[in-house]
Amino acid sequence: MKGAVLYGPKDVRFEDRDDPKIAEPTDAILRLAATCICGSDLWPYRGLQPVDGPTHMGHEYCGIVEEVGSAVKAIKPGQFVVGSFATSDNTCPNCRYGYQSSCVHREFMLRAQAPFLRVPQADGTLVPTPGGIPPKDLVPSLLAASDVLGTGWFAAEAANVKPGGTVVVVGDGAVGLLGVLSAKQMGAGPIIAMSRHEKRQKLAREFGATDIVEERGDEAVARIREMTKGVGADSVLECVGTQESMMQAIGATRPGGYVGYVGVPHGVELDARGLFFRHMHLHGGPAPVRRFLPKLIDLILNGTIHPGKVFDLTLPLAEVAEGYRAMDERRAIKTLLQV
Amino acid sequence: MKGAVLYGPKDVRFEDRDDPKIAEPTDAILRLAATCICGSDLWPYRGLQPVDGPTHMGHEYCGIVEEVGSAVKAIKPGQFVVGSFATSDNTCPNCRYGYQSSCVHREFMLRAQAPFLRVPQADGTLVPTPGGIPPKDLVPSLLAASDVLGTGWFAAEAANVKPGGTVVVVGDGAVGLLGVLSAKQMGAGPIIAMSRHEKRQKLAREFGATDIVEERGDEAVARIREMTKGVGADSVLECVGTQESMMQAIGATRPGGYVGYVGVPHGVELDARGLFFRHMHLHGGPAPVRRFLPKLIDLILNGTIHPGKVFDLTLPLAEVAEGYRAMDERRAIKTLLQV
Repeated sequence: MKGAVLYGPKDVRFEDRDDPKIAEPTDAILRLAATCICGSDLWPYRGLQPVDGPTHMGHEYCGIVEEVGSAVKAIKPGQFVVGSFATSDNTCPNCRYGYQSSCVHREFMLRAQAPFLRVPQADGTLVPTPGGIPPKDLVPSLLAASDVLGTGWFAAEAANVKPGGTVVVVGDGAVGLLGVLSAKQMGAGPIIAMSRHEKRQKLAREFGATDIVEERGDEAVARIREMTKGVGADSVLECVGTQESMMQAIGATRPGGYVGYVGVPHGVELDARGLFFRHMHLHGGPAPVRRFLPKLIDLILNGTIHPGKVFDLTLPLAEVAEGYRAMDERRAIKTLLQV
Repeated sequence: MKGAVLYGPKDVRFEDRDDPKIAEPTDAILRLAATCICGSDLWPYRGLQPVDGPTHMGHEYCGIVEEVGSAVKAIKPGQFVVGSFATSDNTCPNCRYGYQSSCVHREFMLRAQAPFLRVPQADGTLVPTPGGIPPKDLVPSLLAASDVLGTGWFAAEAANVKPGGTVVVVGDGAVGLLGVLSAKQMGAGPIIAMSRHEKRQKLAREFGATDIVEERGDEAVARIREMTKGVGADSVLECVGTQESMMQAIGATRPGGYVGYVGVPHGVELDARGLFFRHMHLHGGPAPVRRFLPKLIDLILNGTIHPGKVFDLTLPLAEVAEGYRAMDERRAIKTLLQV
């Protein structure tokens, strides 16, 4: 089979790779219905995160089970499944606390930008869609559940979004936009999306944003304070991972409010004294998507949410390099790759 | 009147000061029943926090209302009251969210190591004891409610202490010890106190600690992991405020667990990526003691808790300098000053 391999900054190639095989008895092999490119793939693509030689890319996936290892019990060939970017046995203490992305058997998925994929810990990682193979037009939304939707949802949970609460979302990538959607589902009051990009603003509004703030940094913080009668927001979703975005998130939060951060922090240092005197609640991490998957799949299958709208570019897998370029240049929010 | 004035490192004097007077119509003047020295007073006493010339010390207090300003409505002369180290109007949005120590009218109290004290925002700051003047033997416990008990209680709340949950307390000062008491009141399961000081260990056990860990740093973290089947604690109370104590607290917490930190951070830097991959919940700040005062006063008056036991040295106010020395040298946990 052929899949995506990153050789270095801005150098993604569509290349021959070995077909995946069952390596452990707890593995499954999937034939993917589709795959995609993640905002987090852009860190190594841009050279901002070193790669150790040619790296097989991709960690978002859904599709049909081809084969399972001898120890796999719940997952069966022929099922349509969605899995998280982090594998989990779903039985260890961390999993039972709902932090499957801190599972003692966690592996971060790679190699999903390809037609076939080996998934470790299949029983604990994969969730079959109820009612059999879903309609094709739902594949983009189910694929989104694998990471960006689950991550946006976790951002909203970590930021303690409550009915009627004021929410700010920092970051207008797919995760931020789906953070807006998640906050809306959780009954948030005003949802303020920070974006200066027209197409993304439009999708944010479609997903439930009531207001858009175009300012950045201190000006953005001042604007949010003005919009919240000087108090600050109850819940702020930080969906970028830079020092600037984190400080913007903290600055926009009211004393005693909540910052949920899901953008992988890149060089972000926090002064504990500053957090202390602001009474911040801070929570985040790699989203435990597995915790949310059954609910998110239901919301998609019953037509309540349409997270697949974040895919504004669809390309054949062979054109994966253009998919990265389009996202890097912010021409596309998120690229779906047909396998 | 005479009170405590800090001139510089290790130089506290008992000196003439002006009697406090009503300065704002929202003020009250108290005749203190007792006052005391706080662990946080040791930062400037040790020269670790600069002072700007001679500084009137003390922020913990309870006593009888002598006089109130013209705008004070709820508080009346003759009442016995307890107040927080942070003043609050108790009506602004931050107060209504329960963060009275972020009140828009907040002032951090000073000058309480003296016989008389001016308290701003009297109606929002002070809580009268129900049933009139309390018995004298309860004064130490009511005085503790003003800061160290309220702060220990907030640490436990911020660390999300739940019935049956595993709790670790970092810091064996009065706040840490009362964090143990608070966790016990909240129904915690195992309560592990970190201390290598026999007298403090004993009081920790009396307050509800089930286990004592004497190790520090990485060894302490390893010991806690061993005691929690490799998982880490659900709730960790950080009651010191140094880089080492914070890292020890974070290291002792399970993925997805909670660190409640109430030691004023001194030079503490946090790597967001480290917090992220540990799924930490982090919350803390200057304790909103006012939120807890009515409940804490009830628990004291009905004999459920005896937080005054943290005072293991009682001196006349005139000997305040010895009170600081005893705490600095860890000869005393906390010094009560008779006025």
